[in-house]
Amino acid sequence: MGDEQGQLADRQAIHDVLVDYCRLLDCMELDALAALFTVDCTIDFGPDTRLNSRGRAALARSLERMWRWSRTSHHLSNVQIRFTGPVEATALSYVLAWHERPDGSTATVYGQYRDRLERQGDNWLIARRSMLENGSDQGFTVNLHRLDRRPAPSGWIAPAVDAPVLE
Amino acid sequence: MGDEQGQLADRQAIHDVLVDYCRLLDCMELDALAALFTVDCTIDFGPDTRLNSRGRAALARSLERMWRWSRTSHHLSNVQIRFTGPVEATALSYVLAWHERPDGSTATVYGQYRDRLERQGDNWLIARRSMLENGSDQGFTVNLHRLDRRPAPSGWIAPAVDAPVLE
Amino acid sequence: MGDEQGQLADRQAIHDVLVDYCRLLDCMELDALAALFTVDCTIDFGPDTRLNSRGRAALARSLERMWRWSRTSHHLSNVQIRFTGPVEATALSYVLAWHERPDGSTATVYGQYRDRLERQGDNWLIARRSMLENGSDQGFTVNLHRLDRRPAPSGWIAPAVDAPVLE
Repeated sequence: MGDEQGQLADRQAIHDVLVDYCRLLDCMELDALAALFTVDCTIDFGPDTRLNSRGRAALARSLERMWRWSRTSHHLSNVQIRFTGPVEATALSYVLAWHERPDGSTATVYGQYRDRLERQGDNWLIARRSMLENGSDQGFTVNLHRLDRRPAPSGWIAPAVDAPVLE
Repeated sequence: MGDEQGQLADRQAIHDVLVDYCRLLDCMELDALAALFTVDCTIDFGPDTRLNSRGRAALARSLERMWRWSRTSHHLSNVQIRFTGPVEATALSYVLAWHERPDGSTATVYGQYRDRLERQGDNWLIARRSMLENGSDQGFTVNLHRLDRRPAPSGWIAPAVDAPVLE
Repeated sequence: MGDEQGQLADRQAIHDVLVDYCRLLDCMELDALAALFTVDCTIDFGPDTRLNSRGRAALARSLERMWRWSRTSHHLSNVQIRFTGPVEATALSYVLAWHERPDGSTATVYGQYRDRLERQGDNWLIARRSMLENGSDQGFTVNLHRLDRRPAPSGWIAPAVDAPVLE
């Protein structure tokens, strides 16, 4: 298996890790989920330290908070993987995370995972995960890190491009 | 073309089948859509037998129900493909399926397709598709199979991690 | 690097261009975004000519309209890439584009990008991008091109497959 083939298999394995996280979180299989991370992983989701954790075991405990939702669905897209060494990579992905409360109300957040991964033996593991919020609906009130967005130049005036749709 | 290259082409072909289903459903090209399935395919979307069908022709007829929506959009992500034999594979994918009624009201379901595929000649075809619902908004009332989610341990108390967003 | 490997690298590069567009638009890095397009690119988003543009510089200026939103998130999925020549390809992708106004109200559109790309030197660039709207919520009032959807046959009657969910 040549270098390109090796990198292709690694890329596929990393993609599977990112997707497994979503799938295992939505069914709350937290032990299997934690096994996707290094033993000493770092998780940084927001300025509220209750969202962050250090180490695989602490991550599993921290994510028990997701049981306050009755159901969730984490849709991963826009995946970009970069190899930074023979056994190191970074990944950027978008997530649309839908959450439902026991009372039926919902909360959706649109964000980005920014990951550093390491290969240990045959497995790629997430060593560091941070999250940025691009936006959210008004039902979502968790205080995540916010994406930096370049502001409009001073004095910028919005054009009129919205109009009733003709049908 | 070596084995890895062959598998890569197969993986790409299967991904295209999954995506073609969404695209053809959204424009209601049901004959082309049905050609993505084996002649004797099995479709199992829910406990309501009106959602299920057996065989390519019955599937096309069954999906005519989608005309009760005025517009739909099926966003596929989290795709995972596993080869279970030289001409057999399974696929798991997430779908965010948005639907609009003629009165303008909408219904969104967040779910998973679980597929078994077979290669017949040059084509990969879906031999069996089932669907699980991770969740849905209150506008969506179709009774699909539900994802099993591990429940919180008895006596679990939700932490307070939601707070008004500081801006 | 054989032909298949070369096409794989090209496919990966094209995927990255499509995803970079989303990422750079959400943080309003419009100069970097414009560099993903050919100098003489054509953009055709709708019958309203204010949405369309010709050339990289005009595209960057046109997309300044996105500053009328306070935040956006563009989730790309259903990506299909076809090579139409050694340095030419087409791509079809789905986008779920969420937008928030300064007053907190939101607008979501569910659509398709249809692209023609060219390789210039080491870079794949978008030479032509058009967009089709599959649907949108009522908050989104920009007049985009609409997806053609095959209508129900004359006299078609909707079946009753919606029912209260049993829990």
